[in-house]
Amino acid sequence: VSQTLTVALDAMGGDHGAPVVVRGADIAAERFPFARFLLVGDQAKIEPLIKSQMRLQGRYEILHTDQAIPNEMKPSQALRQAKQSSMRLAIEAVETGTAGCVVSAGNTGALMALAKIVLKTLPGIDRPAIASFMPTERGETVMLDLGANIECDAENLLQFAIMGQAFARSVLGLKDPRVGILNVGSEELKGNDLVREAASLLRASPLAASFHGFVEGTDIAKGTVDVVVTDGFTGNVALKTAEGTARLVSHFLRQSLQTSLLAKIGALLSAGALNKLKLRMDPRRYNGGMLLGLNGVCVKSHGGTDAIGFANAIGVAVDLVQHRFNDMVSADLALHPVPAKQAAGGGGSA
Amino acid sequence: VSQTLTVALDAMGGDHGAPVVVRGADIAAERFPFARFLLVGDQAKIEPLIKSQMRLQGRYEILHTDQAIPNEMKPSQALRQAKQSSMRLAIEAVETGTAGCVVSAGNTGALMALAKIVLKTLPGIDRPAIASFMPTERGETVMLDLGANIECDAENLLQFAIMGQAFARSVLGLKDPRVGILNVGSEELKGNDLVREAASLLRASPLAASFHGFVEGTDIAKGTVDVVVTDGFTGNVALKTAEGTARLVSHFLRQSLQTSLLAKIGALLSAGALNKLKLRMDPRRYNGGMLLGLNGVCVKSHGGTDAIGFANAIGVAVDLVQHRFNDMVSADLALHPVPAKQAAGGGGSA
Repeated sequence: VSQTLTVALDAMGGDHGAPVVVRGADIAAERFPFARFLLVGDQAKIEPLIKSQMRLQGRYEILHTDQAIPNEMKPSQALRQAKQSSMRLAIEAVETGTAGCVVSAGNTGALMALAKIVLKTLPGIDRPAIASFMPTERGETVMLDLGANIECDAENLLQFAIMGQAFARSVLGLKDPRVGILNVGSEELKGNDLVREAASLLRASPLAASFHGFVEGTDIAKGTVDVVVTDGFTGNVALKTAEGTARLVSHFLRQSLQTSLLAKIGALLSAGALNKLKLRMDPRRYNGGMLLGLNGVCVKSHGGTDAIGFANAIGVAVDLVQHRFNDMVSADLALHPVPAKQAAGGGGSA
Repeated sequence: VSQTLTVALDAMGGDHGAPVVVRGADIAAERFPFARFLLVGDQAKIEPLIKSQMRLQGRYEILHTDQAIPNEMKPSQALRQAKQSSMRLAIEAVETGTAGCVVSAGNTGALMALAKIVLKTLPGIDRPAIASFMPTERGETVMLDLGANIECDAENLLQFAIMGQAFARSVLGLKDPRVGILNVGSEELKGNDLVREAASLLRASPLAASFHGFVEGTDIAKGTVDVVVTDGFTGNVALKTAEGTARLVSHFLRQSLQTSLLAKIGALLSAGALNKLKLRMDPRRYNGGMLLGLNGVCVKSHGGTDAIGFANAIGVAVDLVQHRFNDMVSADLALHPVPAKQAAGGGGSA
């Protein structure tokens, strides 16, 4: 683990671009003394920023390019027109082995499309998924897919389950992570064809012993299972609903604590504790959507995050490399029979 | 509004059955002096409970039946085997005009199926939906469907939008409520075929001027729109994820306030304010899923609620009757062209 790891960064991605990426890299440089950074983007913008970041000195390279992918660019356009973009070149650095992982705060759809075309999916994986941590009463749960695949079939959900379970074992260090499929009720007959079919695939798979069954929306925050599997539409709505609700409760709390003088004094005395709560719920802690299922480690940071959030996204990428997540997934996939349609298509040979 | 309104209650429904229903009715009796209660269920269980409830005296009747619907009974079984159940008889009281509305804390699937078969849907409505209030930064938003319809088509979502908008006008008293369709992004091209098709139906409907477009999970708690329209699968997951997250943040808050003596003293001083927050987030405040689209008012209470929560569910039913919600929906539906498949089926003539 003490070997050097080069992290490729899309220095032009995100709402704030290079300033946040460079400062994020600087924070990560302190946290991960073995890391080096390949900053891909406009040299004229990156260089003046990097001079004042002491921890980065001697530990970075700049790969210059003029092209950047705007937030509104469609994935299909990104594939055709953005061959020299900072995002694509950063991903290519992983493909060629120059870097061990890549982090971008840019356009999610473009990142997904480019990562898939450049890195390719792991043998046995049809479609990569976006995964993230969710805070729970019992610690942390990983949920996927969070929006990469709006329409899924049962086989996709099975593959998400395999990836999520390997993730929980490798990165979270759990011995026997439990997997649940997100549904409208926990009874076997509940839900639509997709989740019922995915449940029977799971029960017939090597993962059967780790399969908890269906879980409901309330189970995410309870931490009923370690891995919550769902399609990208539902997962995206659930993730953003949770974010919105957490913000709403904080908003109500702030309002309540300003209703009386007594409450204000109380809030002052509890300031340390309330701050701890704020840190615990800090969305920057959960920044970093992992694109799982690719032949390489690729992490998406929230577009609007700050340097601390971006450093956390780098941390997620470093974790995935250090815990050899991809090796573990590949080993698991080798245990699963190749699904019929894939064998027929000749695509994936595990 | 000062006329008598009889509320039919499934006295056997819910996790706690008659004790919670009877005490809930007693609380509602004080809140709604014009209300009377028809308690449907086992007379031997109801009578001893009701004697000590002073506010109910002279304002109730008991309709005896031995049969009750268990929580695990399938809707199809409920339709065939539960003809004399407390739930069915309570719904029939609305159909015959004996009662103006019905409230049950029992089996949701059975309630939905029985209400649909006994009360029938309003002309122009294919499928009833379950709606509920969600707390937001700006007040309250109504969201539907929350689980009645696991698979929906675009026409269903249009009908949900019509019902939700009429609901916001009648019960919430809003002049021009804004309607949004829940999606993974706000851009027009986002999402699956279902939401995109529903959006174009809405844009071509008399509701077009009230249609905000797509909203994301974070928009629910922000209160971006007054009515959030979604299919029953996504809506159920979003509702329960929001409930779970709110509980998680409260849990974290309690933990934080116990970490130091200073925090504990602060919490004592802020106790009034924190209590206000608790009341504001109280799930009992939002108890009462409304089955919209039926020829009659039917409200589902949470199965696990207490008497206060059950009284709130009665309050929701009373509101729907008093604000003539169904008349308003029927008037709105008359403005909408009858969809082709319905006209062909000969089912609904508006």
